[in-house]
Amino acid sequence: MFTADTCLLPDALRAIARAVDEGLDQVLQPPGDGRDQLYAAMRHAAIGGGKRLRPLLVKATADLFAVPEIFSLRAGLAIECLHVHSLIHDDLPCMDDDDMRRGKPTVHRAFDEATAVLAGDALHAFAFEILADPATHPNSDVRSALVMELARYAGAAGMAGGQMLDLLPTEQMTSLEAITRLQEWKTGALIEWSVDAGALLGGASSADRTALRAYAQRIGLAFQIADDLLDVEGSEDVVGKRLNKDQAQGKSNFVTVLGVDDAKEMAMRLVDEAMDQLQDISVPAHLLTEIAAFAIARDR
Amino acid sequence: MFTADTCLLPDALRAIARAVDEGLDQVLQPPGDGRDQLYAAMRHAAIGGGKRLRPLLVKATADLFAVPEIFSLRAGLAIECLHVHSLIHDDLPCMDDDDMRRGKPTVHRAFDEATAVLAGDALHAFAFEILADPATHPNSDVRSALVMELARYAGAAGMAGGQMLDLLPTEQMTSLEAITRLQEWKTGALIEWSVDAGALLGGASSADRTALRAYAQRIGLAFQIADDLLDVEGSEDVVGKRLNKDQAQGKSNFVTVLGVDDAKEMAMRLVDEAMDQLQDISVPAHLLTEIAAFAIARDR
Repeated sequence: MFTADTCLLPDALRAIARAVDEGLDQVLQPPGDGRDQLYAAMRHAAIGGGKRLRPLLVKATADLFAVPEIFSLRAGLAIECLHVHSLIHDDLPCMDDDDMRRGKPTVHRAFDEATAVLAGDALHAFAFEILADPATHPNSDVRSALVMELARYAGAAGMAGGQMLDLLPTEQMTSLEAITRLQEWKTGALIEWSVDAGALLGGASSADRTALRAYAQRIGLAFQIADDLLDVEGSEDVVGKRLNKDQAQGKSNFVTVLGVDDAKEMAMRLVDEAMDQLQDISVPAHLLTEIAAFAIARDR
Repeated sequence: MFTADTCLLPDALRAIARAVDEGLDQVLQPPGDGRDQLYAAMRHAAIGGGKRLRPLLVKATADLFAVPEIFSLRAGLAIECLHVHSLIHDDLPCMDDDDMRRGKPTVHRAFDEATAVLAGDALHAFAFEILADPATHPNSDVRSALVMELARYAGAAGMAGGQMLDLLPTEQMTSLEAITRLQEWKTGALIEWSVDAGALLGGASSADRTALRAYAQRIGLAFQIADDLLDVEGSEDVVGKRLNKDQAQGKSNFVTVLGVDDAKEMAMRLVDEAMDQLQDISVPAHLLTEIAAFAIARDR
């Protein structure tokens, strides 16, 4: 698609992938009884694979404010658990009915549908268990804010609401405005939470939080446009999931509405705007700049 | 089944049912856009019907410590949202495949499966949004403790773990010990949370919390044994859901393992033990005593 000059990002991506896998392995230890199949399904979905974009955004933002890595990594594990919960349920036969995810069989294929429903539910709860734990931040006001905001962004008014829109008859979802709103809820909300969580952990000023949220909103949309481009231009082997889905289902997305060229232009404009927002914050944010560029310069 | 002398309970049940319905109606207002179907499904499942046992336990326990009703009612709404989430997902075709719940069609029958998955997810998130909100308690340490404990009790180690056990081949679940453990996780955990939430909101002493938890564990099992008895002795019209399920599916429960008479005796013993625990706490707990008796003296 595009290329981007990066120097911090490749190491940061490798480091966060390792840290997330190690952290999840540690906190998802099976208890050694009849619940083990549930833990196996949670581990199958959560460990290995995935770009770990949301944990990276938490950490990269928290690093701006010198937050100890132990805190930002735990918040990153929480948002990844919530994200994986949504992927498991989204892949169910009654939803998107997908067989492959992150290069592996989806949970309901590797196990069964009931286990997939429960594994998603358990990871959902686990996200909040991690966040509310004093090990995530010593200040309970910060932990409560993280929980309340994540619950709001994940629920009916946010991600679940966006998923509902995505299930509506396609003729109701054909305008650029409708698709933008759908994606702001469905995928944008958790990306915005990730950046804001880093700011909350770091006690960022209100001005910095506002700019960082504006950054997050723009890269959220840019990532989605890039996903829609990968859906038509990507390689299934590299992306690790079924492609050409929206066209096969007659669904509108940024590329079907705008066409490939205008979609790329819109994504580039959003990335530029995101980078502009970073100029307004009180500390230099090189890694966040690279992540913005990466939004549209990736093959999976 | 049994009868019990009650004087506080009938009014308390009516009052909590009205308060929960009004509270849920208020917090589940549809936004007036494409997400409305999701809100309609959440309202269908959550408003009207149900004994509201868990909110009643929160409030009855909180009342012992003079907690303002506005706090205990919000914690009660949260646990009811989490409970309804579990009912919606439990009723799905891939799980128990039930058509009726609380005298109404289940969510996947009244709407569709995808909407049921999302409505359950949204109510799950909503429980945590309510709890973490400063309106639920001014002290963020209390709110964080409520969130962390509920997430733990709802997740893989608690309710979801118990639901997983319930899906295992029936020949692995035939002993009284195995069924007791399953039910302590599947249904006991949220009942224990409800009582402990009232104690946490009220700043109860550690000794009182211990006694109240022991009370909750016993009535949790007693309620389940009574449910198993209703499964063979109850009326579908009164109970509001399909009965004789366990026998039809060849599943073991307290009644199939113990027989009707011994199951009744065990339930009565548990209620006695629960009432004994209430003697040990620092304040009189008449309503909790009546709730213990009600566990086994009900027809739905």
